[in-house]
Amino acid sequence: MSIGAIAFAGSGLDRADHIRADADALAGLMDWRARLLRLDGLDPQFDPEGNLAWGTLADAAPSAELVFLGLAQGKACFAEVSPSLLGSVAPANPRLWAAMSSLGSAELATYGTARALVDWHARHRYCARCGCPTILTKGGWQRNCTNDVCKAEHFPRVDPVTIMLVEHEGHLLLGRQPRFPARRFSALAGFIEPGESIEEAVAREVMEEAGVTVRDVTYVGSQPWPFPSSLMIGCHSHALDGKLTIDMTELEEADWFTREDVAYAMGGSEDGRFIAPPPQAIAHHLLKWWLAR
Amino acid sequence: MSIGAIAFAGSGLDRADHIRADADALAGLMDWRARLLRLDGLDPQFDPEGNLAWGTLADAAPSAELVFLGLAQGKACFAEVSPSLLGSVAPANPRLWAAMSSLGSAELATYGTARALVDWHARHRYCARCGCPTILTKGGWQRNCTNDVCKAEHFPRVDPVTIMLVEHEGHLLLGRQPRFPARRFSALAGFIEPGESIEEAVAREVMEEAGVTVRDVTYVGSQPWPFPSSLMIGCHSHALDGKLTIDMTELEEADWFTREDVAYAMGGSEDGRFIAPPPQAIAHHLLKWWLAR
Repeated sequence: MSIGAIAFAGSGLDRADHIRADADALAGLMDWRARLLRLDGLDPQFDPEGNLAWGTLADAAPSAELVFLGLAQGKACFAEVSPSLLGSVAPANPRLWAAMSSLGSAELATYGTARALVDWHARHRYCARCGCPTILTKGGWQRNCTNDVCKAEHFPRVDPVTIMLVEHEGHLLLGRQPRFPARRFSALAGFIEPGESIEEAVAREVMEEAGVTVRDVTYVGSQPWPFPSSLMIGCHSHALDGKLTIDMTELEEADWFTREDVAYAMGGSEDGRFIAPPPQAIAHHLLKWWLAR
Repeated sequence: MSIGAIAFAGSGLDRADHIRADADALAGLMDWRARLLRLDGLDPQFDPEGNLAWGTLADAAPSAELVFLGLAQGKACFAEVSPSLLGSVAPANPRLWAAMSSLGSAELATYGTARALVDWHARHRYCARCGCPTILTKGGWQRNCTNDVCKAEHFPRVDPVTIMLVEHEGHLLLGRQPRFPARRFSALAGFIEPGESIEEAVAREVMEEAGVTVRDVTYVGSQPWPFPSSLMIGCHSHALDGKLTIDMTELEEADWFTREDVAYAMGGSEDGRFIAPPPQAIAHHLLKWWLAR
């Protein structure tokens, strides 16, 4: 059983990889017909109908770098790395979440791709190998070091993260991080490290955060998450026993919840044992998947 | 059905995450009892039995940075970022593959983790945000910018890659990259990009490289791959039809293979239609999984 349509996936944009490396083809697309995604820093701008707002390349700052997002209905779509962004870090904020809720799923995915890429360019101005400035190339899918001795090539980063349901005797393990809204609980999660399989990362995270040994880790579904550029990998596992030893530096609280607890929260009720994660998050879909099994 | 044990996973090392952030605990472990993985650049050194060679921290260069790999049988294990490595790029080579074949699976995984981390440190000496030097912190699981205005934190990179079986009417799509040994064919593969789910990345890669539309993408298994630091995500999918349009910039050749072709190659025969990928590669395990279904 699949977890179905999920936020930030399904843009429908043709990434047109072959154009990125073809400087002539790319230049040919950068004319008055090209569309520029209108951003306010990293946040989206909206048209009167609440859709993503688009302009033309003439709207970009003269010194701005442009990222080629792909083709939509034959039109080349770009996003601007605004000079005002350079070096900044802009986490998601409640205002952004409210604004994004008006977007259809394809638009949300297009925005997420643009946000992740633009953010990467804003925070990767210099070569990590030699410290010299880098320049955008291949339509923004690469940056090259300008130092002729170094010439390092750098690529947009995607950070794989495991997020996991842990089940024991019909109960589900959920936790809350200090930064969560009040009474929100969600699936445990953590970055995959060098030298780990997905399954090993799940087992390590659950042990680290809750002191629980898991078995039978299985994959459920995945989601791109543009804050700043994660790949959420949703899994299911079984706990060997129910005893919890919570890492209070990572989690404020963690506990086992019954099917009824989960169904009540997922029904939108806020007066149960916890408040469910929002529909944009893969955790929401993992819980829905678990209830439907 | 799982793909079972796979190379570079299963080190059995306790990564002891809580120690990384505890400078006192880490310093306390860096005594004469600590073990230093002996590397020749990024390549492993071997003891007379063909196992990984270990020394003590006294063997490290005085100016070397040390990466805390974790605990093995209560002993702290480290690897050295040799000053001679800084800024270099060292791809895997045939000599390395031959040498690694003597290692047991846990040792291969420990080596892979060390290689990925040491390589990351060697090529990430400067802050990508501001260009200033960075220093190793948290036992080598982080680098911090030394510029007091910037203070950016940088984390070891893991690049998720999809690698996929594509099936059509009982045939399997395999391709060969120009860099492969003669007559080797393997599963198609490609990096996951910002803004894509795993399933979307599989569909895009197969379309880009072979002109084939796929449906029903399912996850099969994963593998850490330390060249330099990928997470291979193995999937299975069905092609809508068998017509191939091969991207000759990515692939030298691609074709459909019967179950008999695959079984013959996987049996170790080199006089069939192709030579199978080696057992260290997840592609080998995907083919084995497919034959066993």
